[in-house]
Order: sequence, then C-alpha cells, then structure tokens
Amino acid sequence: MAHFTNHAGHSALLQQPESTRYSCNPESRLEKLRKELQRRNLDAIVIPTADAHSSEYPPARFERRAFISSFTGSAGTAVVTATKAHLWTDARYFLQAEEELTDEWVLMRQGEKGVAPPREWIANNIPSGSRVAIDPFVHTVRNVKRLSKTLEAANIQLIRLEGEHPVDVVWGDSRPELPTVPVRKHPVKLAGASVSAKLQTIREKIRAQGATHALASKLDEVCWVFNIRGGDVPHCPVVTSYALIGLNEAVLYVDVTKVPDAVADTLAESDVEIAPYERLCADLESLSQIGKNPGNSFIWMSPDSTSQAVFEAAGKAAFLSQTPFAILKACKNPPEIAAIKSAHIKDGTAKCQFLCWLEDLVCNGSTISEYDAGVKLEEFRSKQDGFVSTSFSTIAGFGSNGAIIHYSAKQGKCAQISRDEVFLLDSGGQYIDGTTDVTRTMHFGVPRQHEKFCFTKVLQGHIALDKLVFPDGTTGLMADTVARAPLWEQGLDFRHGTGHGVGASLNVHEGPQSISYRTSSHDASLQVGMVVSNEPGYYEDGKFGIRLESLVHVVEKTTKFRFGNKKYLGFEKLTFVPIDKKLMAINLLNDDEIDWINSYHSEVWEKISPKLTCKKQLEWLREKTSPISNKSEANRYF
Amino acid sequence: MAHFTNHAGHSALLQQPESTRYSCNPESRLEKLRKELQRRNLDAIVIPTADAHSSEYPPARFERRAFISSFTGSAGTAVVTATKAHLWTDARYFLQAEEELTDEWVLMRQGEKGVAPPREWIANNIPSGSRVAIDPFVHTVRNVKRLSKTLEAANIQLIRLEGEHPVDVVWGDSRPELPTVPVRKHPVKLAGASVSAKLQTIREKIRAQGATHALASKLDEVCWVFNIRGGDVPHCPVVTSYALIGLNEAVLYVDVTKVPDAVADTLAESDVEIAPYERLCADLESLSQIGKNPGNSFIWMSPDSTSQAVFEAAGKAAFLSQTPFAILKACKNPPEIAAIKSAHIKDGTAKCQFLCWLEDLVCNGSTISEYDAGVKLEEFRSKQDGFVSTSFSTIAGFGSNGAIIHYSAKQGKCAQISRDEVFLLDSGGQYIDGTTDVTRTMHFGVPRQHEKFCFTKVLQGHIALDKLVFPDGTTGLMADTVARAPLWEQGLDFRHGTGHGVGASLNVHEGPQSISYRTSSHDASLQVGMVVSNEPGYYEDGKFGIRLESLVHVVEKTTKFRFGNKKYLGFEKLTFVPIDKKLMAINLLNDDEIDWINSYHSEVWEKISPKLTCKKQLEWLREKTSPISNKSEANRYF
Repeated sequence: MAHFTNHAGHSALLQQPESTRYSCNPESRLEKLRKELQRRNLDAIVIPTADAHSSEYPPARFERRAFISSFTGSAGTAVVTATKAHLWTDARYFLQAEEELTDEWVLMRQGEKGVAPPREWIANNIPSGSRVAIDPFVHTVRNVKRLSKTLEAANIQLIRLEGEHPVDVVWGDSRPELPTVPVRKHPVKLAGASVSAKLQTIREKIRAQGATHALASKLDEVCWVFNIRGGDVPHCPVVTSYALIGLNEAVLYVDVTKVPDAVADTLAESDVEIAPYERLCADLESLSQIGKNPGNSFIWMSPDSTSQAVFEAAGKAAFLSQTPFAILKACKNPPEIAAIKSAHIKDGTAKCQFLCWLEDLVCNGSTISEYDAGVKLEEFRSKQDGFVSTSFSTIAGFGSNGAIIHYSAKQGKCAQISRDEVFLLDSGGQYIDGTTDVTRTMHFGVPRQHEKFCFTKVLQGHIALDKLVFPDGTTGLMADTVARAPLWEQGLDFRHGTGHGVGASLNVHEGPQSISYRTSSHDASLQVGMVVSNEPGYYEDGKFGIRLESLVHVVEKTTKFRFGNKKYLGFEKLTFVPIDKKLMAINLLNDDEIDWINSYHSEVWEKISPKLTCKKQLEWLREKTSPISNKSEANRYF
Repeated sequence: MAHFTNHAGHSALLQQPESTRYSCNPESRLEKLRKELQRRNLDAIVIPTADAHSSEYPPARFERRAFISSFTGSAGTAVVTATKAHLWTDARYFLQAEEELTDEWVLMRQGEKGVAPPREWIANNIPSGSRVAIDPFVHTVRNVKRLSKTLEAANIQLIRLEGEHPVDVVWGDSRPELPTVPVRKHPVKLAGASVSAKLQTIREKIRAQGATHALASKLDEVCWVFNIRGGDVPHCPVVTSYALIGLNEAVLYVDVTKVPDAVADTLAESDVEIAPYERLCADLESLSQIGKNPGNSFIWMSPDSTSQAVFEAAGKAAFLSQTPFAILKACKNPPEIAAIKSAHIKDGTAKCQFLCWLEDLVCNGSTISEYDAGVKLEEFRSKQDGFVSTSFSTIAGFGSNGAIIHYSAKQGKCAQISRDEVFLLDSGGQYIDGTTDVTRTMHFGVPRQHEKFCFTKVLQGHIALDKLVFPDGTTGLMADTVARAPLWEQGLDFRHGTGHGVGASLNVHEGPQSISYRTSSHDASLQVGMVVSNEPGYYEDGKFGIRLESLVHVVEKTTKFRFGNKKYLGFEKLTFVPIDKKLMAINLLNDDEIDWINSYHSEVWEKISPKLTCKKQLEWLREKTSPISNKSEANRYF
C-alpha cells in the first residue's frame, strides 16, 4: 500500500453505521463548540487528526476533527475561532472535503500556493493577545515546539486544555467508547524473543544513554516490547497503551479490564507491572520528583511520538531523543522472519485462489463490482489459518479508479470490473504470524500498447530495486532512484514513495525506514531484518493506474568482494503472487530481467502450488507462472 | 578531481622555496605564540585553515595554521594553550601530519573513535572561566555559532581577537604578502551576461527577499558577479575581494592598486564602485546605522561563507540566509557552456598529445617519473590558446600510488611509470574560456584480470550515471547510487563523492550541487547549466587505483512522455579523451554499454582529430577510438 507523508486511510468513524455517526447537524455542533470556547475564554482551538499515540489510524473515540467538521478523510487539521472555521487537508482529499464540509467551513488546500500551514495562518489571522487552545495529549512535543514558537512571535497565548475537551462536551454521549477488544499474547515462538530478552536489550540501550527509563507511546512499539496484540484500531492489531521501561521495572499502562489473566500471568513472569492507562502521567510526575536528586531519574522519550502532556508530566526528568523501540522492532529476528514467511505463503495462496476465481468470472463475460471483489478477496483470506483482519482498506481500482492512489470503492457506488480496462488490486492481511501487503495490476482482456509499455517500465523499476546490492549504511533515499530510473528514462514517474516498512503481525506502515525521494528516507539506513515494500507505480489520471508491490526483507548478500570490510546487503522476497505476463512488453525486457521474472514465477509455483488442491487453481497457477522468452514473437511492444 | 568534505589540495606555502618557508624553528614559534597569548591574557587560541572568504585554498598569507604547526596539509585546525598544542586533521593526512609535526604537538585523528572535534575538546579540557581566542575574520558565522554554543555551556569565554593576530606577530616580516596579480576582465562574450544584467538579476532576488543588499564573500562569487578574474590563489583565477550589491549601488572591495584602468572603466559602465578592500566593514556599519529606520537596510549574507567579523559589522542589518550567488553562478548560460566546450576541446587535444607521447615512451621500454609526467602534461596544455594554469595539483599515481586518492608526486621522491602497473592520471587546466578536470586510468603493459574486472565495474557506473535521465528536482544524493550500483553488486565501493560542481573558468570545485552519498548532496538539485564531474573509482590499498572522470553539463532531455509536466534532465559530455580499452573486460559489458563506449569514442575522434596535425598522434587517436565489439574474443574476463 503506497505510503504518503500523511498516510492514506479511512476514518474509523466510517466503521460505525452512517446513521449514528453524528448526533446533531454540523451547524449546531460548531455553534455549540463556540459557546464552549467562549465559556472558557478561548479565542480559538486547534483540532488535529490524532490520538495520544501518534497513531496513523486513531480509534473512533479520538476522531474529534472528523466529528466537528464532518470531513472524514484520514488527514486534516481544523482551526475554529468565534467567527471562522478552517480545515486544512492535502490534495488527496480536496474533492472529498468539498463534498463533506458545510458552508460554515473554509477548505485550506495544503500544498497550494499561498496556503499557509495552520500555525502561520493563526499567527497572521488571529489578533495579538488572543488565547488559542490545544489538547496537549494529541499534539507531539515537536509539534507544540513549532506551534508555540510561531504563536509566541505573534504574541498569541497557547493554552493547554484542561478538563473535558470542548469537542467532547459537544459530542456528549454519542462519543464512541474506546474499543474493549481483549489483549492477546503474541507467542514467543513467533516473536522470536521473550519479553525478558527484549527488556534486557532496551535496558542496555537505556544505560548506554545514561538514562534510567524509556517511554514508548506508539502502540505498535508497546505491543512489540510486551509481545501482546489487540484490536483497538481498524487494521492494526494494537492495544491503546504506554510502556515505561526502567532499569529495574517495566510497566504496561492499559485498560486493565482488557487484560486476561493468562496475559497478565505471562507478563508477570517478566516482572511487568500492569497499571491503569490513566496512571502514566502521575507515575512520570513521581519519577520527576525522585529525579531532583541528580542522576536519579532521566526518562528517555521521542519528540516525534510523545505527546506534550506526557512530556510535561515528566518535567525536568524528560530526555528527548529518538528512543530505540522503533529500530529494534523494525529489525526482525529469524523466528519473526520465519513467521512472516509463513503468513505470506497463506496470503499468496488466498490471493491466487481469488485471482483464479476473478479471472474465470470476468473472462467468461460477467462483471463484479470493485467493492464486491474486495469482499470476496477477504473471504478467501479469512479461510487461511490465523487470519485476523485486513491490514488496510482494500484498494480495488478498475480503469480510471486505479489512478486514484488512495481509492476506496464504495458499496453500490463503484465501477464494475470487466475485460475492458486495467485492474489494480492492493490489499493485505493481518495474520497471527505476520502482516502482508501486495499489489498486482492485471488485465482480463486485451491491454493497450501504452498500458503494456508503462507496466513494463514499472516492472523494470521493481526488478532493479529487488536486485540492488548495497553496503550497510545505505538509506532508502539512496535506493529509491533505482526503482524510478527506468520510468524517468521515458519521462514517467509516480508521486508516492517506493517502499514503506511493515510490522511483524503489526502495523502495515512502520518506520523508521522507508524508500522514497523524501528527505525523511535518509534518516535510517536499510538494515538486516527490516521488512519493506517494493512498489513503484505509474498513474494516468482519468485512465488507468499501475502498481506492482511485493514485500521483501533485508538480508546480507554474499558478494565476490567485500570492500571496506562492510556488510553488503540486498533483499529477499516475501510475497509470492504471479505478476501478469499479459501486461509485459517482453521485447522491452533484457535477458537479466526475463531471468528474474522466470525465476520469481518458478518460486511462486514451488511455494504456492503445494497449498492448492483444486485442479482449476493449479492449472491457473501453472499457466501464470510458466516461463516467458524474449525469443517469442508474442507480447511485443511496437 | 575527487572531492572530499574537506578538500584535498596543497598548501600555498609549498609554492615558496623551502628555505624561506619558515623563519624560525617550530619550538621557538610555539613558545613565542604562547608569550603573545599570555601578554593578552588569553588561555588558548583556535587557528583553522581559512582566509576571510571560505576559500578551499587560502593565499599563503593566511596559512597561519601551517606556519605555526609546520603541518602543511590542506585541512586542519590547531588549538594552542599555555601547555598544550593539538592539531586536528582527517585520515588523508595522518601520515603527513605525523612526519611534519614536532614532539610539542599532539595529532588529533579526526573521525577516529573517541576523538572529539576541537570545540568539544576545548569544552572538556580547558578550565571553566578561561578565555579562548579566535580571529573573527577566519571563522564563518555558522562555525562561531556552534563554537560559542559549546563553549558557553562549559562557561568558557570566546574572545574576538583585535589588533594584530598573535600568529602574525610571531610570523613577523617573513609573513607572505598578498598576491599582487592584476585583475583582468572576463569578456562578456565568454561570461554570457554583462555585469549590468547580472546585477539586475541579483537585485530582483534581493527585492523578492525583502532585503536591500546582498553580500558575496566567496572569491569565485565576486569574480562571477563582476566578470573579473585574477590570480590570487593557486589554481583558482580569483581575486581577494568582496561584492556588496545594493538595489541602487554595487561595490567591489579589492586592493585598488591591482585593478587596471581598463577594468575599472568597464566596471564603471555598470555603475560598479571600486573601494579599498579594508573599507567593507566600515561601509556595513554605516548601512546598519541607516538601517535603524525600519526597512532601510537589510543586508543578505550566507551563514556558511560570511565571516563572523563581517557579520558583526553589519549589526542588526544582517539577514542570514543562503544568498543567490552560488546557484546563479552554478547554472551556466549557453555562451558560458560554449566557452567551456571550447576549453575542453583544447584540453582534450593536449591530453591526447601527452598520452600518445607517454605511451610511446613507456611502451618502448623507457620510464618516466610521476612528477616529470605531470610537468610534461602541463607543457602540452600550456601550448593551447588561453591556457592560464593547472586547475589543481596534478595527481599522477602509478601502481599503489594510484590508490592514494589525493596523491601528489614529489620531485625526486616518486615512482617511475612503466609497463608493469595501472597508471591513474587526474589533472585539469584553467583556460580563459573554461575549467577542465579529467581522470583517465590506463595500463601500458598487460593488466591483471582483477584490474580489468574492477575497471569495468567503474566504467559501468560511469556509463550508468552518464545515461541517467531524471526529473527536475532530483539531487546528487539521489543520483549517486546509480554510479555505485555496478560496484556494490560485486562488494566494491569508493570512499569519495561521485561528482562535484565545476566553475566557468573559475574554481574546479564549486557548489551548491554535488553527487555524493553525503547528506549535503541533497541540499541542491541538479539544474540545467550546471557542470559536474562524473568520477566513480575503486582503490585497492598498496596495489592500484582506478578512477574514470569526465565533466558533463546538465541539459533538458527529450523523453517519450513528460509526466507531471516536469522537465526531464540528463547530462551532456564535455570531456573528450579516450577511455583505455585495454582495461575493459568486454564480455562483462552489455550491448547498451558497448554502444555508449563506441559512440563516445567516435565523438572523441570527431572533435579531437581535426586539432591534431602530427600523423603519429592521429594514428594513436584512431586506434584508441576504434570501436569494440562483444562478439570479439579479445579482452575477455575469465
């Protein structure tokens, strides 16, 4: 699934029945909020899309921005004053926001010329001396630093909200509750390391930093440390919680009613205390008091994922710097990789079964809606052992819908898949043993020459990146070019990153690594054990979309030489689903590329065919994975 | 010439006869300096390698660090206290520094574990409350900011030197004078834009920034603005000067005795005032006084090239931000490119004549020293029209010397070039119309299989980068990988950047663009008109060195499509000198690479053969540029 700076995704509010989503009409909501602001002597409020954990997808309970503005896109910030209501979002959501916002709202098109970011807009449009409120739990330390700097220069006071959030006052009883999905164990066999072992590693890092504690605010980091999983966020098997690791103690802050005894017992064996979620700030305050004796308490937290409120609770004991959780989690150990491989075989099997079924249906002249295709695919996946959920909202884009990178087919309002156009299918599953994410682009009829040309260039980029060998220390920014060069040569390109990190039965998007032209892709190098997607694409607005995505993991490669005594690294494939040969212009491929395709397909056959029992599916897979040859006159581009 | 973060080069002091280089022995110099520090109540002094203009090669008069420490390498910082004398330099110079420093000095090996940078060493080793001196003219604003932050935290006072520099007091009468080379005009025909036109462009940028003036401190920037050249720095045709451009005035601060009437007259026509070099600070102070009426004076200067002293002179009127000089200078206009092309044909002719001569000599069983080969090459170059000087110290490295990336052959103490080893030759010329820089690696006997293998991988990287097409906005960090990928695949790599910017009859190293794995290569994109080197390499310590360098300029490319309505860019070759076919393992090259080589060699023949009159040279060139074929059984790697 292509990864944006602000991620594509879908409001958890949409998971609720449409009728109950909003309890009052937008006008009265905004007016009620303004009264609440007035009552508290506030001139404005900033409402971002966020929970207290920098989650990509926050639970519905925290979708305050969506509630107050009616705009349900995954990224946006609202600023409400006594007379104005502005909503910022990015180009992916301009159309949707125009539809969803009422006349009371002004849409601020982020990235367009002359559109200042919220903090600058506030500084320039709200009178000096005003009081602007934020909820310190849903702004990170870094955000607040930037915001307060700008507002200070404009002599505007930044007010930390206390008591009930003004939006929640308006929301009232209809505000969704936090999910109550029970916490489950992630078995050590799959995690590859016990909680004790992980705590030991983290404690070594804490000692090396001269700190006494490290705090994890991100939900996937907490789940990783404690080998737990949950279901608090759509598509993400995480638990709303914090982890505070000290040199001698470890605390999981969570709704304790969600922790079954068996989980609590296991955690107790690693001396992990389970404490109420709300107790974190009080505990940090206590630690900061102890910290008054120098060197006693020094709590390590990341400025990019810790909320301002939590940071302030730690007082002078807070030490802001990238914590080690993300990188430790990103570098999977061999048992994790083995589990991930097993999940991918199951996922590949389900996807092959589905594609065989779909091809049969469409090639016989029937059609099916994009939405229904997604439902059917989930049905095949759900038959696999250990299937938990989809890992994101399936993107099934037929024809011109494929060109909408974050497309989501709406039931009853979407296109029918037929033999006439290119079909892009990007989907993934959460399994007990791993997380998958795969995109294949196909054509059930006769593709146009131009579509074949573009598909082949995308394929060449995908192959080039897959084959890249690079010394330890190479970043995703440096690798990105390799996947784009075959497209660039033709004046083609795509406007999303080439790859994102993927969790081990955790979030489908994780850092710190990524493969992209964005500067942030230079922050972390690609390291052994990291799982990343390789997904170049090409999109022609109003016509078609092509994306080819497989997951790979970083492995050490044996090279002829070893200059600088460095490790030389490369990728090993995790995803096994055939790539549509019909869309390949074979005469544009060189011998090495043909070899890569044939070798990949033979691996797909070896790994997936033993899992298929139905003769039709086996025949389908045999045909889809049979070798191609550039000697053949078939499938040429002219 | 490969470009380091700290640049390779050679002390201008070395230009003086060895006997007069130092007037007293090192011991007494250091002791005299300490007395001078004591007299001024200073506890320490920091002496970097720098003039007031952030020059890569400072004039001999400013080589205070070399004078006081006896270490003549191009990069280093000395810190002297009452009892200690430490010198920091990087790995290139460890051996040289060990040889040159006396026992009084401690060598600080930059980049080695546990070696803190000077500012941290000072903070940790000099008592709180001490007074540490710097000359504010030879530290940039950015450096002083960093230094003062660290020292402040350690409660150490940073003292700006006033009056005569303590090192100069010790140096006395033997301190070299500033060069008196007259300033000459760089004809508009070659510059492609009049001074008036350049001033107009700069004034538009100043207005757009809301500033009133822009200051250029870098010597090549001043020369570029005023279409002048000089000879104040070895290898660089620049003039020690500043440029201050206001909306209505433009001033060249320079030793006025060096400006001939004809140059002054021409500048006067563009209303450029010529003022004494020393007057700059006073003028800035006056401007900052006027600036007290808001909006009156706002002087734009770069934090990376403006000295602290100049910045302070401008007081509150200083506005620190990247000035537009570097990028305007870097993007050459068509007449500049035409002039550069002409210089490259002359340079290619001289280099071919030399290589023919050298091959004849060596293949006939004679040998010649690396140093003498460099002298002979300069002799050929100097016969070309408009030759001014070498553009850097020639790097002629035979066998294992080729593996020393910044090697400089010493007369009487260097290797003899024979038929037995690989020979690396990196050299360039300054011409009236352009600056060149070319590296070729060759073998006059029978290369080893391994040498051919490595050469071929370097060549494949060079070709891949040369052919790269990329959208506008692509940076050198993103392009760098393409040149390394063929080496990485084999576990090979090189420890220098792949490319640096080159001036138009100016410095052989210029920014802001570069092609490298260093983060700074992401600061500026590769833009139309920029000249860069393409110089991958491979070095085996104690054995051989390979580097293949040509200059190219960035041009717009015609692509089949034009996604995003962006410009798609690529390179056009400037350097025309044959690449040694003997070192190519032809069976490792693919058809596209063979085509590239044959097409390049046919262009070399077309451009250089008309310039050769000697039959022997023509035959040599014919043979060196004849096509290769991978059908042939010759020159295989097995």
